Amino acid sequence: MKGMYYDGQVARLRHDLPEPRPFPGEVVLRVRAAGVCGTDLQITRGYFGFRGVLGHEFVAEDAGGRRVAAEINFACHACTTCARGDSNHCPTRTVLGIVGRDGAMAELVSVPERNLHAVPEVVSDAEAVFIEPLAAAFRMVEQVEVSAGTAVCVLGDGKLGLLCTYVARDRGARVTLVGRHADKLALAGAGVATCTSRDAGALGRPFDVVVEATGSAAGLAQALTLVRPRGVIVLKSTVAARYEIDLAPVVVDEVRVVGSRCGPFPPAIAALAARRIDVRPLIQAELPLDQAEAALRLAGEPGARKVLLRVG
Amino acid sequence: MKGMYYDGQVARLRHDLPEPRPFPGEVVLRVRAAGVCGTDLQITRGYFGFRGVLGHEFVAEDAGGRRVAAEINFACHACTTCARGDSNHCPTRTVLGIVGRDGAMAELVSVPERNLHAVPEVVSDAEAVFIEPLAAAFRMVEQVEVSAGTAVCVLGDGKLGLLCTYVARDRGARVTLVGRHADKLALAGAGVATCTSRDAGALGRPFDVVVEATGSAAGLAQALTLVRPRGVIVLKSTVAARYEIDLAPVVVDEVRVVGSRCGPFPPAIAALAARRIDVRPLIQAELPLDQAEAALRLAGEPGARKVLLRVG
Repeated sequence: MKGMYYDGQVARLRHDLPEPRPFPGEVVLRVRAAGVCGTDLQITRGYFGFRGVLGHEFVAEDAGGRRVAAEINFACHACTTCARGDSNHCPTRTVLGIVGRDGAMAELVSVPERNLHAVPEVVSDAEAVFIEPLAAAFRMVEQVEVSAGTAVCVLGDGKLGLLCTYVARDRGARVTLVGRHADKLALAGAGVATCTSRDAGALGRPFDVVVEATGSAAGLAQALTLVRPRGVIVLKSTVAARYEIDLAPVVVDEVRVVGSRCGPFPPAIAALAARRIDVRPLIQAELPLDQAEAALRLAGEPGARKVLLRVG
Repeated sequence: MKGMYYDGQVARLRHDLPEPRPFPGEVVLRVRAAGVCGTDLQITRGYFGFRGVLGHEFVAEDAGGRRVAAEINFACHACTTCARGDSNHCPTRTVLGIVGRDGAMAELVSVPERNLHAVPEVVSDAEAVFIEPLAAAFRMVEQVEVSAGTAVCVLGDGKLGLLCTYVARDRGARVTLVGRHADKLALAGAGVATCTSRDAGALGRPFDVVVEATGSAAGLAQALTLVRPRGVIVLKSTVAARYEIDLAPVVVDEVRVVGSRCGPFPPAIAALAARRIDVRPLIQAELPLDQAEAALRLAGEPGARKVLLRVG
């Protein structure tokens, strides 16, 4: 079958990939569309040590023609971590297209049936590809109180920063988006204040919650200049890099720093279905799977929005 | 009056200090005993930019002869931070012997009356000096769930690490103390597992809560190797230094990092009065105020326990 394969050196579209063989409890899905994520680009730069088919944002259809999205952590559901309800952190888990598991930029993908979520008809394929990253943005509001009146600052006007902005706004928070690109800041949406990174110093430290989604290790230092004492910094960027920082302000101001990763699909699907969150302005382009290599290059250009692959 | 004064270059016992003049709402106390804290030593190395009388751990008596301890953050009680209940973080606060306020290594000290707490008769002067640092250890259990069965690892067998160990044990937690000094680890107390820093790698990652009290910026990296996914790291060390660290594990494992500083006096006083926590093994020596310079030198020696100054 066709698929976008990373061999540890280069990512290439291959036509000779074997069809996936499902483990017990899994189903093979026919992929309809997939998205290119910043993590995919990091993988192709050699981080994470992954080899295989890329892609973890997708919509597919099962044997019965039902459209589905799938959570990407494949857990054992038998260990103490899973028993605690932390199956997304199962120590022996594989992760679709990231850790030990072929991903979704291919004609077919195999995933555990329990990971599937039905996609309502009103949500298009292009929107459904955003369910996984939007769920990651919703993870934040599972961990941190964000409600009417909460002063939230989102650092980073990339795709994840914008999705976090939408989720915080959906919760009624007073949101300020800080970023570098005028065209991205323009996507913040109604009722969201925007500010360039250069001017962020003038904001003071009024924020209850600062979401670090810059994709840069330097984001945390900036977040510390914006969060109020006893406030919360949500770390969303997985930056595979060492960074020098003075953490004394964390102690003196009793700041909480909360790592935040994958999130719940149901609120993301509900927000898309109800049109409470509109992700369509985030789409840069949609290319066929045959042009997957060009799609990854496009997604890697500075300031690129979400690039989609049309598969089925 | 006499007092231990830091002029920005050296800390010296002076005999010519003016008596403190109380602000409205304050009382002048006659100091009975004071403790030397690691923060005092950092101040004398030029951190924090403080000039004045050192000392923030003390017991004193008021005009009526009542023995008292005092919380060290002097807030305005008028701003929005104070109104939120965060007066310990008041942006215009002074801090006894640390920020803009003469401290307690002197014959007299002026503090706000609302900051005072009566010291029960059963608590000796030497023990009462520990109320402030023990309160800082109790702060941790205000911020983080620590109860029967919680697996807690305390990194650092210094005074603060040992006090955190006692508080976690007092809450019924299963506690492991990691440190470098056999004589300090021996102070961990009954029911506490101990481990040398060198062997900590073999502990695995079983800990719900890791308390970073090493006083070293490297402590956080070690804490990340010991905390379970979705666990909590409590940062107690205020290390005034930049440190290079890879924070990706915070995101991937959704760890919470919680800065923790000053804490509540009542539970500290109650634990000392009820003899649930015994701080006396932590005392290295008690010297008269006249030997304050020698006391600071002694406190600065590697492995030193708490050095007390007898004042009144």
